[in-house]
Amino acid sequence: MKTFVFAALIAMCFSLNAVQHDMAYIKWEDKHQDLLKSDNQKVNEKLRALEKRFGKKPNIIYILADDIGWGELGCYLGGKVRGTPTPELDNMADEGMKFLSSYSEPSCTPSRIAIMTGRHPFRTGVDGVYWPGSDEGLPTEEVLIPQLLSKAGYKTAMWGKWHLGEAEKFAPENRGFDYAYYTVYNGAPFAWVDVEGHYEKETVPGSAFFYDFPGEKKYDEQYGIALQGIYQAKKGQKRKEVAKLSAITMQKVEDTSAKEIIQYIKDNAKSKQPFFIYWATLAQQLASSPKDYRFEKNVDSRNNQAAELGQHDTNLKKILDTLHDQGIAENTLVVWISDNGPMYAFWPTSGYTWLRGGKGEVYEGGVRIPGMAWWPGMIEEGQDPIDLIQMTDLFTTAARLGGVTDDIPNDRVIDGIDQTAFLLMGDGHSHRNFIFHYNGNHLGAVRINDIKLIIKGTGGSIPEIETYNIKRDPCERFGKLYPYLWMVQPAQDLIKGHLQLIQKFPNRKKESDSQSTFGPHD
Amino acid sequence: MKTFVFAALIAMCFSLNAVQHDMAYIKWEDKHQDLLKSDNQKVNEKLRALEKRFGKKPNIIYILADDIGWGELGCYLGGKVRGTPTPELDNMADEGMKFLSSYSEPSCTPSRIAIMTGRHPFRTGVDGVYWPGSDEGLPTEEVLIPQLLSKAGYKTAMWGKWHLGEAEKFAPENRGFDYAYYTVYNGAPFAWVDVEGHYEKETVPGSAFFYDFPGEKKYDEQYGIALQGIYQAKKGQKRKEVAKLSAITMQKVEDTSAKEIIQYIKDNAKSKQPFFIYWATLAQQLASSPKDYRFEKNVDSRNNQAAELGQHDTNLKKILDTLHDQGIAENTLVVWISDNGPMYAFWPTSGYTWLRGGKGEVYEGGVRIPGMAWWPGMIEEGQDPIDLIQMTDLFTTAARLGGVTDDIPNDRVIDGIDQTAFLLMGDGHSHRNFIFHYNGNHLGAVRINDIKLIIKGTGGSIPEIETYNIKRDPCERFGKLYPYLWMVQPAQDLIKGHLQLIQKFPNRKKESDSQSTFGPHD
Repeated sequence: MKTFVFAALIAMCFSLNAVQHDMAYIKWEDKHQDLLKSDNQKVNEKLRALEKRFGKKPNIIYILADDIGWGELGCYLGGKVRGTPTPELDNMADEGMKFLSSYSEPSCTPSRIAIMTGRHPFRTGVDGVYWPGSDEGLPTEEVLIPQLLSKAGYKTAMWGKWHLGEAEKFAPENRGFDYAYYTVYNGAPFAWVDVEGHYEKETVPGSAFFYDFPGEKKYDEQYGIALQGIYQAKKGQKRKEVAKLSAITMQKVEDTSAKEIIQYIKDNAKSKQPFFIYWATLAQQLASSPKDYRFEKNVDSRNNQAAELGQHDTNLKKILDTLHDQGIAENTLVVWISDNGPMYAFWPTSGYTWLRGGKGEVYEGGVRIPGMAWWPGMIEEGQDPIDLIQMTDLFTTAARLGGVTDDIPNDRVIDGIDQTAFLLMGDGHSHRNFIFHYNGNHLGAVRINDIKLIIKGTGGSIPEIETYNIKRDPCERFGKLYPYLWMVQPAQDLIKGHLQLIQKFPNRKKESDSQSTFGPHD
Repeated sequence: MKTFVFAALIAMCFSLNAVQHDMAYIKWEDKHQDLLKSDNQKVNEKLRALEKRFGKKPNIIYILADDIGWGELGCYLGGKVRGTPTPELDNMADEGMKFLSSYSEPSCTPSRIAIMTGRHPFRTGVDGVYWPGSDEGLPTEEVLIPQLLSKAGYKTAMWGKWHLGEAEKFAPENRGFDYAYYTVYNGAPFAWVDVEGHYEKETVPGSAFFYDFPGEKKYDEQYGIALQGIYQAKKGQKRKEVAKLSAITMQKVEDTSAKEIIQYIKDNAKSKQPFFIYWATLAQQLASSPKDYRFEKNVDSRNNQAAELGQHDTNLKKILDTLHDQGIAENTLVVWISDNGPMYAFWPTSGYTWLRGGKGEVYEGGVRIPGMAWWPGMIEEGQDPIDLIQMTDLFTTAARLGGVTDDIPNDRVIDGIDQTAFLLMGDGHSHRNFIFHYNGNHLGAVRINDIKLIIKGTGGSIPEIETYNIKRDPCERFGKLYPYLWMVQPAQDLIKGHLQLIQKFPNRKKESDSQSTFGPHD
């Protein structure tokens, strides 16, 4: 009987000419037909009314922050407690919706893939973070959200940390963005620098083992990697290096990005076309100290990371203010979210989280991240929903808002779920009760409702599994291999269906840049 | 030179006919004369104006909760996240002041001593928690805050868990309270019971090792301890046992206490005398599930602890509402605070904290506790100060509010600091930059400004010390034996002065009840 139902579900899912979801969602959908119907009706009504009022689809701004943990912002019990005041981010949460259960991939490149493609990175052939000098990139067969939104008539632009491949064929201007101002790297070349742009030479407790670093100007010579600078690019045109890479330059990228974004909003506020902005800010990964923000907002002058947060916090406010000033706040969804948990390797100037683990791990500290959504008039203020939302959902939700859900390719599994109903109606309206936590190609954990299984391996006669009730034990302290079928079986079923669909839709192969001096590798 | 200053300070402190503070405070005081003067002036003005308006000193209500960790309440990122909604406690915080750095002693009896005497328990000869059957009690030479406030003309009353000795000479009605309704025990005889008052027989994950417990009615026979029931008492009269001890009785104690408190407030609202209420609620130590609150407020029906919090949350609101209804909210300080961190022995129905460790430890999880102060018109709403406050401070602050600071005996060290300025003016006005964390008679940790030293022993050639920056690392993950003098020396100086004063004012000896069937022991 059970097999029959399962087969019927698979048949059903393949017969629809729609988004190819994971089996976990298909099962959820099957059980929640009434909620789905009612949610869809309400969402359609709200979006239609809005489109009538503004004469176009809503603008979308996604701000992806870097390594900011669950517990860093004031509104997540950080702020004063951690010496990292974030009054404007807190204010954004007050005016909108603060996610208590928003989840990312466990590191930088993977989360960028998730938000751009709506897919867990392992499906795309990418299994980790790109390091400077890599010739690989996100395979060009992947369809990115700016490509879809361009089809829907959106103007698209990105600022900040691309990190999806160094070669031009992987670059944002060739992957759907009309305009881009970016670096191809993570913080590796710039981190641990003082205000003058030199590697830290002062006595910073805990950073003593970095003393041997060369001055930043010697980086290229030292490691044989010709670092690429800051690029500016327009769709279809050759990108220009507008600044050389240095610690000082990087400190200015945040402010320059914010200034350009504000101008972009002003230029496009009255346009017939809506816009999509993707701001992948480097705050707070640089772990450097922007000079102008060192002594502001009660930030301890020795605390580089807090100064970076302060800089970002100030810029965020300017952007939200601009939306109000231009009269388009009510037609603009702004989502702010972190790409993963804190990177403790940067300690003592790293971020922090209340949770167990950090960046690179599938424990909550690596993947449960601060996130909020702001949309005056559409998202009721002062909400803090506990329902689940995952980074991939931002892809599918943007497609729905842009009216291009039908353009999402259905020859691949899309992990993202349309969460428009959740954004517009809050708790009780998330269409997700599960998460697959991948670390590279390894399925590291699954969550279904409150139960999470950490999958460590199959070392002995029984699987090495830790079972947590994330609601009772958010810090994952009391993991046990529970003998209770009711606790583990739902997760087992989830994994079974998930793996069957992977066989049907195999993961993509890696793609590299044949022009690279390093040559392709796999 | 340094020795000279130190000697001068000691001389100064002994020459004053005032509260005998710890050397740590005397040094702080010496450096902050201007702030103290200005704070005192403002506090005096505010209190004088209030007394003029109401014709009496302010009422004081201290609510001491049981084992509620930093991270359990909604306003400490618990609530929805943990499945323990506390809307009314959150509301109290919104309307007043939420302490981000309030500290208790690490367990029940010690925190009760701290709030009642203003002294760290080790000074009073008490080194731990009383277990049912103990003949010891808080030495009767200790002067309790209800005794002082009685002198000031206050009516004094207490409800809940006394836990400072079983014998009558140690009982609240003989220690300064006009009225008391109480149990002498901690939760040991009642915990782990189901709604019907029986020990849990169902399959509760994690509690399997309790299956061998006898039914609760057999407790006396089983352990040879004649359990005392719920007492009601008036000053100078013999106490009456108004209910036998059972799990069902205990579940009703919370509601009965709240009802009596509300009636007491009504009866005394218009009195010429102010009142002092000390409510030592058993919520949430029972880890049982009050039937009426099981399904309220989205509480998971299996979650006993959340049901208990729900019950307390509901009662708290009724009390605050009564103060408003009676027109005395603006003349009543209400402080709500937990006695220590979570007791994980009760897992999975225990409390929780974001911090490291729990009850019985001097890591933050044991001693950093939720706390708030509420006083409409006097305490500005919406504050969340990060400045330090310690349980002993509640003694000294109550004495100041009652105008009986001069009656505090000066033949002993008082650890509590008058924090009236902090309550009335918030961050920047705490008169404390240090804490001594004792665990029994062992000085387990000291905190000065952001730096905390965990003192583990002197095992080898160097002291076993962990050094934390509590602001950067509130979970105490990156402890090191730092070689930096600037980091460790202030704490060393703190300890030195502290120990010198202990030599001058030796700790009291234990006191026991000679009537006890067990006889005295030391």
